[in-house]
Amino acid sequence: MGDTTRPTDHTGLVVLDLDDCLAKLLEVPVGRLAFQLDGELSILPVVHTLDGVDVCFRTTGDSKIQAAIDRDPVAFEVDHFDASTRSGWSVLVQGTATVVDDEMDIRKLDQAARAPWVPPHEGPSTWVRIRTQSITGRALG
Amino acid sequence: MGDTTRPTDHTGLVVLDLDDCLAKLLEVPVGRLAFQLDGELSILPVVHTLDGVDVCFRTTGDSKIQAAIDRDPVAFEVDHFDASTRSGWSVLVQGTATVVDDEMDIRKLDQAARAPWVPPHEGPSTWVRIRTQSITGRALG
Repeated sequence: MGDTTRPTDHTGLVVLDLDDCLAKLLEVPVGRLAFQLDGELSILPVVHTLDGVDVCFRTTGDSKIQAAIDRDPVAFEVDHFDASTRSGWSVLVQGTATVVDDEMDIRKLDQAARAPWVPPHEGPSTWVRIRTQSITGRALG
Repeated sequence: MGDTTRPTDHTGLVVLDLDDCLAKLLEVPVGRLAFQLDGELSILPVVHTLDGVDVCFRTTGDSKIQAAIDRDPVAFEVDHFDASTRSGWSVLVQGTATVVDDEMDIRKLDQAARAPWVPPHEGPSTWVRIRTQSITGRALG
């Protein structure tokens, strides 16, 4: 199946380069965060923004996310699939999650952010930064 | 924001019941598996099928997935979002992953399965069953 002009992995998927991955991270507004808490894995959708190569998102009082982000390893994924053509792509970001507490940083992220999807919540709202350690992407079809 | 006829969680999202969650798991062909390997979290898309309340998928030689599914806790997520209306839903399955090695089971899953998206791969292909421990879902908008 290989497209001779683009590298493929051992399963035949096209390997996306870093620029492709970053473009796709910007292209879609919602991604998914995987984190571990009390020995259980969870995946929850978040509305994200990109700061350099770091994925950032605001979480509004979600205690599960907040408990899990104490410099823990996390994964973040964006994708798009078309069932009619059985094609699509996915981008995976791996890193550690930290709470953003610097005022300048918070202001910068607030300005760059997309409008929140979840209506403002009475509880505290926190910016989380995933300090990116790797970004990889694959495309199919 | 609460719809008085449907329960909401502490962030104002509508809580989906089990029937809703199972219907949505059937509705979309691709979901995302989160697993841990060597202290790192990953999220990879898989084309899934449902067997009772268990999520099953065939993996074609993906050593990362195969290495991670030795009765490890995993998470599986499906979702759908509409950026124009800022609405959507997500369903999270938590459980343990096992390799399916019973011949009858494999035949049953082969019959129920959607056609594979990734072209057949020369390596061995394995059915994985997530023994579901919990299914939860949320909707927004």
